[in-house]
Amino acid sequence: MSALKRFGVSIDSDLQKKFDRLIKKKGYGNRSEAIRDLIREALVSEEWETGDRDTVGVFSLVYDHHKSDLSMVINTIQHHNLDIIRSSTHVHIDHNNCLEVIILKGKSREIKKLTDQLASTKGIKHGKLIMTSTGTEIT
Amino acid sequence: MSALKRFGVSIDSDLQKKFDRLIKKKGYGNRSEAIRDLIREALVSEEWETGDRDTVGVFSLVYDHHKSDLSMVINTIQHHNLDIIRSSTHVHIDHNNCLEVIILKGKSREIKKLTDQLASTKGIKHGKLIMTSTGTEIT
Amino acid sequence: MSALKRFGVSIDSDLQKKFDRLIKKKGYGNRSEAIRDLIREALVSEEWETGDRDTVGVFSLVYDHHKSDLSMVINTIQHHNLDIIRSSTHVHIDHNNCLEVIILKGKSREIKKLTDQLASTKGIKHGKLIMTSTGTEIT
Amino acid sequence: MSALKRFGVSIDSDLQKKFDRLIKKKGYGNRSEAIRDLIREALVSEEWETGDRDTVGVFSLVYDHHKSDLSMVINTIQHHNLDIIRSSTHVHIDHNNCLEVIILKGKSREIKKLTDQLASTKGIKHGKLIMTSTGTEIT
Repeated sequence: MSALKRFGVSIDSDLQKKFDRLIKKKGYGNRSEAIRDLIREALVSEEWETGDRDTVGVFSLVYDHHKSDLSMVINTIQHHNLDIIRSSTHVHIDHNNCLEVIILKGKSREIKKLTDQLASTKGIKHGKLIMTSTGTEIT
Repeated sequence: MSALKRFGVSIDSDLQKKFDRLIKKKGYGNRSEAIRDLIREALVSEEWETGDRDTVGVFSLVYDHHKSDLSMVINTIQHHNLDIIRSSTHVHIDHNNCLEVIILKGKSREIKKLTDQLASTKGIKHGKLIMTSTGTEIT
Repeated sequence: MSALKRFGVSIDSDLQKKFDRLIKKKGYGNRSEAIRDLIREALVSEEWETGDRDTVGVFSLVYDHHKSDLSMVINTIQHHNLDIIRSSTHVHIDHNNCLEVIILKGKSREIKKLTDQLASTKGIKHGKLIMTSTGTEIT
Repeated sequence: MSALKRFGVSIDSDLQKKFDRLIKKKGYGNRSEAIRDLIREALVSEEWETGDRDTVGVFSLVYDHHKSDLSMVINTIQHHNLDIIRSSTHVHIDHNNCLEVIILKGKSREIKKLTDQLASTKGIKHGKLIMTSTGTEIT
């Protein structure tokens, strides 16, 4: 198990004041928490660039469920990729529009490939991917 | 109800070839579908810039559920914002790490404020927002 | 004049190790410098969101100088916006292609408006804006 | 030399109206021009992802020229990378702050490596890269 450490950051007092203002606005309780989040975001960005590390993605799809057999197509694509799909949540936005949110775990390269395929399916209005993390690399 | 239209795009043959290659790689069946997606993405970006339109967000949180009372804190924040939260999905990534995915519908300004608050909560490793759409503006 | 301060960041030893690896790869000499850059980037992003603060933008345009009177059109647009344009640099990329880089200082809203106008000019192949800073807000 | 082609895009009339509104706001004269720009932007993004194609970058640096020997350090780094640097422009923003804009041509991987090195140099307040194009791939 890993221990808690502490390191010092030297900073101009003006820059510190502006940073304090920003993190207060965002809701942070203290500087350490905000700094750790900046560090984690930098690490997650790098994790996705390499392509071959195990990571987690969240993919959202907006579509009109009246359109042909779209629900079935999306369902079928997912069934062919069970190994990297962990869950799907469906929300009825209004009379016509659906949102489906798919949680994926796998190599970033594989996640991108599958979500490109889903986004390009005819009838999908908007497909977008959150590149997040398994959490193990950003303790 | 709105009708289907058709418009022409004049384009250099080289540029068209390169575009065809790209959309094939991404999985599109034809140019119209790919063009409509580019148009929708441009419209969704603009929708989020204005701040006061009804839209849909998908927010992912990664955290260690062993950390203090984090699950309860996240739960409480959500209960104070029931009006814009549509659903929450929880995935157990490994022994320590959880992923919670929250689907939100409301003004983009309000969605950003709440998700900033969640992301800045002590113990949250990674919080990230997909800015998507209700679908009504991108038929 | 503002003084140098120092604050402590508590961090898990694993996260610190991964951060050290990342910043070494990027070329940073020490953690303070890397942390200050993360802080400045967060402040610059926020500066551009508000729209009405004085800031600095760098805009790049790629175009084919053989195309009609494009050089003249770009030149004319710039002359109508002298108050926010500080300089223009022209590079001949190859026989056909030119790069023009325009440095702008003004409200972020005005910079975006002018660079949208330039990017949408017929014949411009690629227009892109760096949102940077006057430096005064990120000492 | 490549010829001008024309292809049709089928689109819902509502979506077309919204797109027309957006491109008018951005300053486009017609849909073809706007569509070609969306296509080119998609191609440029992909060009930078591969890492090994010849491309063009524009890098901006903001710094305080009073700080030690920063101007000299930046100058030296540039002299060690003459093969990918095409030009440098310097703007005096105010009494303290300078902006230096460097135009680079080379493999995207090499451009990123050098600009990471410049951005991480002690005393640089803000470094940011525009990933643009030689123009030859986006006729």
